[in-house]
Amino acid sequence: MPYFDAASSAPLHPVARQALLAALDEGWADPSRLYREGRRARLLLDAAREAAAEAVGCRPDELVFTPSGTRAVHDGIAGALAGRRRAGHHLIVSAVEHSSVLHAAAAHEADGGTVTEVPVDRTGRVAPGAYAAALREAPGGVALACLQSANHEVGTLQPVAEAAEECAAADVPLLVDAAQSLGWGPTEGNWSLLTASAHKWGGPAGVGLLAVRKGVRFRTVQPADERESGRSPGFENLPAIVAAAASLRAVRAEGVAEAERLRGLVERIRARVPELVPDVEVVGDPERRLPHLVTFSCLYVDGEALLHELDRAEFSVSSGSSCTSSTLTPSHVLRAMGVLSEGNVRVSLPRGTAGADVDRFLEALPGVVAGVRERLGAPKPAEAAAGPAPEPEPELVVDSLGKRCPIPVIELAKVIGEVPVGGVVTVLADDEAARLDIPAWCEMRGQTYEGERPAERGVAYRVRRRA
Amino acid sequence: MPYFDAASSAPLHPVARQALLAALDEGWADPSRLYREGRRARLLLDAAREAAAEAVGCRPDELVFTPSGTRAVHDGIAGALAGRRRAGHHLIVSAVEHSSVLHAAAAHEADGGTVTEVPVDRTGRVAPGAYAAALREAPGGVALACLQSANHEVGTLQPVAEAAEECAAADVPLLVDAAQSLGWGPTEGNWSLLTASAHKWGGPAGVGLLAVRKGVRFRTVQPADERESGRSPGFENLPAIVAAAASLRAVRAEGVAEAERLRGLVERIRARVPELVPDVEVVGDPERRLPHLVTFSCLYVDGEALLHELDRAEFSVSSGSSCTSSTLTPSHVLRAMGVLSEGNVRVSLPRGTAGADVDRFLEALPGVVAGVRERLGAPKPAEAAAGPAPEPEPELVVDSLGKRCPIPVIELAKVIGEVPVGGVVTVLADDEAARLDIPAWCEMRGQTYEGERPAERGVAYRVRRRA
Repeated sequence: MPYFDAASSAPLHPVARQALLAALDEGWADPSRLYREGRRARLLLDAAREAAAEAVGCRPDELVFTPSGTRAVHDGIAGALAGRRRAGHHLIVSAVEHSSVLHAAAAHEADGGTVTEVPVDRTGRVAPGAYAAALREAPGGVALACLQSANHEVGTLQPVAEAAEECAAADVPLLVDAAQSLGWGPTEGNWSLLTASAHKWGGPAGVGLLAVRKGVRFRTVQPADERESGRSPGFENLPAIVAAAASLRAVRAEGVAEAERLRGLVERIRARVPELVPDVEVVGDPERRLPHLVTFSCLYVDGEALLHELDRAEFSVSSGSSCTSSTLTPSHVLRAMGVLSEGNVRVSLPRGTAGADVDRFLEALPGVVAGVRERLGAPKPAEAAAGPAPEPEPELVVDSLGKRCPIPVIELAKVIGEVPVGGVVTVLADDEAARLDIPAWCEMRGQTYEGERPAERGVAYRVRRRA
Repeated sequence: MPYFDAASSAPLHPVARQALLAALDEGWADPSRLYREGRRARLLLDAAREAAAEAVGCRPDELVFTPSGTRAVHDGIAGALAGRRRAGHHLIVSAVEHSSVLHAAAAHEADGGTVTEVPVDRTGRVAPGAYAAALREAPGGVALACLQSANHEVGTLQPVAEAAEECAAADVPLLVDAAQSLGWGPTEGNWSLLTASAHKWGGPAGVGLLAVRKGVRFRTVQPADERESGRSPGFENLPAIVAAAASLRAVRAEGVAEAERLRGLVERIRARVPELVPDVEVVGDPERRLPHLVTFSCLYVDGEALLHELDRAEFSVSSGSSCTSSTLTPSHVLRAMGVLSEGNVRVSLPRGTAGADVDRFLEALPGVVAGVRERLGAPKPAEAAAGPAPEPEPELVVDSLGKRCPIPVIELAKVIGEVPVGGVVTVLADDEAARLDIPAWCEMRGQTYEGERPAERGVAYRVRRRA
C-alpha cells in the first residue's frame, strides 16, 4: 500500500528503529546524574550530538535537541529575536515558510514586532536580491531573517546561500528551516541558525534540532533549565535522540544514490501526469527542487474527494487545496505562488519507494480524476475549448455564491464557450479559493483575467475570452 | 546492579516497551491526515488520550500531551497566568516545588509579576491553611496557585485537597504538579490544572501531561498550532504517547500491591539506617509520604564522595547535597525544611526492587559512610560528645574560609569538645551550605545555634555549647 506523503512524516528508517530499541535499554536514565546509568546516558547523548552536528555542519556545542521541529522553530525564532532586541524589532520571512515559522512571526507581531513577507515567483522561489531588498526597505532595525532551505509543499529549493550573504552584509542573522532537506544533505551558505525535524528524514517523532552558531546573539525566552545548554527545557528524550542521530547518518550515507533514483521517479510523474490527465498544472521549480517531491493541481476537482478516492485506491498523498476537511483556505504556499489550488496533490516519495508503485499511481490517477470530475459535472476536456459558437450576449454573469471550490471554476469553464471572443464573463463567488483559482485557470486556459471587485455579495471576478 | 533513583527517571516498564514497539509500526504517520495511515495514528492518539484522562480523572478533551513534564509545567503555568491576566499578576507556589515550577515563577517575576513562596515545616509539608493565608496576604489579585502532590526529594505528601478548597474559596485556580505521584494514584481534591511526566512512572521520555479543567481560563502563549487543542505545539510524539498511556494503566493496575511492598522496604531503610550509621538524620514526613522514596543526611560527609562510593559499590542514588558536581548550592527543598543537607542521600525504589537489594544496600552503607568520614578526618561518633574537658578559652574561632561542605561542620564538631559548657564557638565560613548545615548540626547534637552575622570575609556562625 504505497505511502506517498514522506514530507508530512516519513516511515521510521530501520536504523532508527534499531537505535531506538538499543537506547531504550541503555538510555532511559538521567544523563545529568553521576552514577553509571547516568554516565551511560550522557555518553549516548554526547555521541548523538556529535553525529547530528557533523551532519548539520556545526560544532556539537552549537546544537541542541528540541522536542520537535516546530518547537525548534518557535524557540529558535523567539530566542534570536530576544537576543537581538537592541538591534530592532523587525522580522523578515518568505511568504512560503512552514506554518510554524509564520505562526512564530504572527506571535511576534501580536507582541508589537513588525514582519515583512518576501514574495516568491510562480515556481515558489524567492528571487535573488529579494532578501537584500527586504533588509533595505525594513521599517526599522531588523532582528532576524528566516528562509526555508526547500519548500515543503512544492519542493522548490530556495537560494539560501545568496540570502545568507545578503543578510551577512546587513549584519542580520539568518535562520534556515531545513526540515525538508536535511536528510538529503547539509545546508549551503553561511547561515546563523538552523532548525530541523527528525521524523521528516525517517527518524522518530519527538526530536527536533536547533543549531545556533557561536557569536549569534541568543536569549532563551523559556523559563530557566539546565538541560541542553538552557535552550530547550525538559528531560532529554534520549532514545529518540539516539535514533534521530543514527538515522540521519544512515540516510545521508544512502543519500546521493537514493536521491538520484527518486529524482527519476519524480521526473516520470512530472512528465506523465500532464499527458495522462487533462487540465493539470504541475507546480514548483522543474530543476531546483527536492528529489522526492512533486505537486500538481487538477482543474475542476475537489481536493478532499480526490484524496478520498486515491486513499480508496490505496495511495496516501496530501493536498494544499482548500477543499479538504482540515482547512478552509487554500495553502498559503500555492496562494503566494499564484498557482491553481483546486484538486491539488502533493506526492512525496519515501526512501525505498518502488518504481512499480509509481507506475500503479500513474495508472490509477486518470480514472480517479475523471471520476471526481464527472460527479461534479465538470466540463469535458474538449468541451470548454471547442464549444459551438454561441449567440453573443453583452455580458454573462455566473452566480456561484455559496458554492465551494472547485464549483466556481467548473461553472466558469462551462460558460466560457458561450462568451464571444473578446467578450467578458463575470463570476460571483464568496469562496476564498476562487481568488486564487480563477486567475490560475485563466493562465492555464489562455484566457485574460481582468481582476476582481467587491460585489453586493461576495466578489466579482472578470474574465475576458481570448480564443 | 540496583538502581535506586526512580524519582529521577524510572526504568522503562515492560508494557511501555511493548506498546512503543507496536506504535512504531502503526503510529508514525501524521494523525491529522485523512489517509489510512493518518486515521490509524488518530485512533491510537484518541485511545491514548482516553486512557490517560481516565487515570488522571478528567475528560479526554481536558488533557493534552506535551513533550515533557517540564514543558507541561512551563506551558501550564504560562497559559493559566495569561488566561487570568485580568484577575491579577500574583502567583503562589510552595517553597519545595520542583525546579520547573520555581523557574516558571522566576520567569513570571522577571516579566513583572509577583510571587509568594509558601513555607513548609521540618517534614517538608505545607501547613493546612497556608494557602488560605497566602491568598489573603497576596499583594494584589492572585492569578494562580501551584502545589505539588508529593515532594520529589523527601517524598512528603502535600495537602492538595485542602489547598484546592482554600483556592476555590478565593476563586483562584490550583495547578497540581503530580509528577511524583500520578503512577501511584489519581490526585485527590478539586484541582484546576494538573501536570505529570511519563518517565517518572516507567513510561518513555518525551511525554508530559497537561490537564486543564473546563471552565478554567487558559490562553496559550506559544505561537499558534492546530495540534493538541492548540496547547502544545509540534508533531505528536505518538509512539511514546501510546507507550505512556499503556504503562500508566499498567502501573496503576499493579499499584496498590506494589506500593505496599515498597513501603515495607522503605520502612526497613527508615528504621535501620539510623541504627547502622551514626549521626544520620532521616528527613521527610514519616507517615504521609510516597511509598517508594526515603531521604536521609549523614553528618560529616561530602555528598559527591558518598555518591561516588555508593556507585562503586553498585548502588545508584541521588543527593540534594551542595557538594555534588552538578550543583553549588544545597537543595532548595532541604533548605526550606531547615534540615541538614550534607551527606544527603535520596533512595527511590523502582517497581520490582528486590528486598535482597535493599538489604545489600543496608549492609554496604555503614562502611561507605565510615570510609568517607575517615578520609575527611571527621570526628569519631563518641569523640565530639565525650572529649576530655579542655582548658576554658574566652571564645573560640574556627576559620573554615575557603572550605567546602562538609568541612566547616567537621571542624566545628572537632572543637566543640574544647568549648566550655555555656561557652561559644564561632565558625567563619563562606560556603553556602554552612548556613543550612551548622544550624542543622546544632539541632541534631543538642547544641544551641545563636545565629549568623556578616564577617570581614564570609559569615560568622555562633554556636553555644549546651552539654
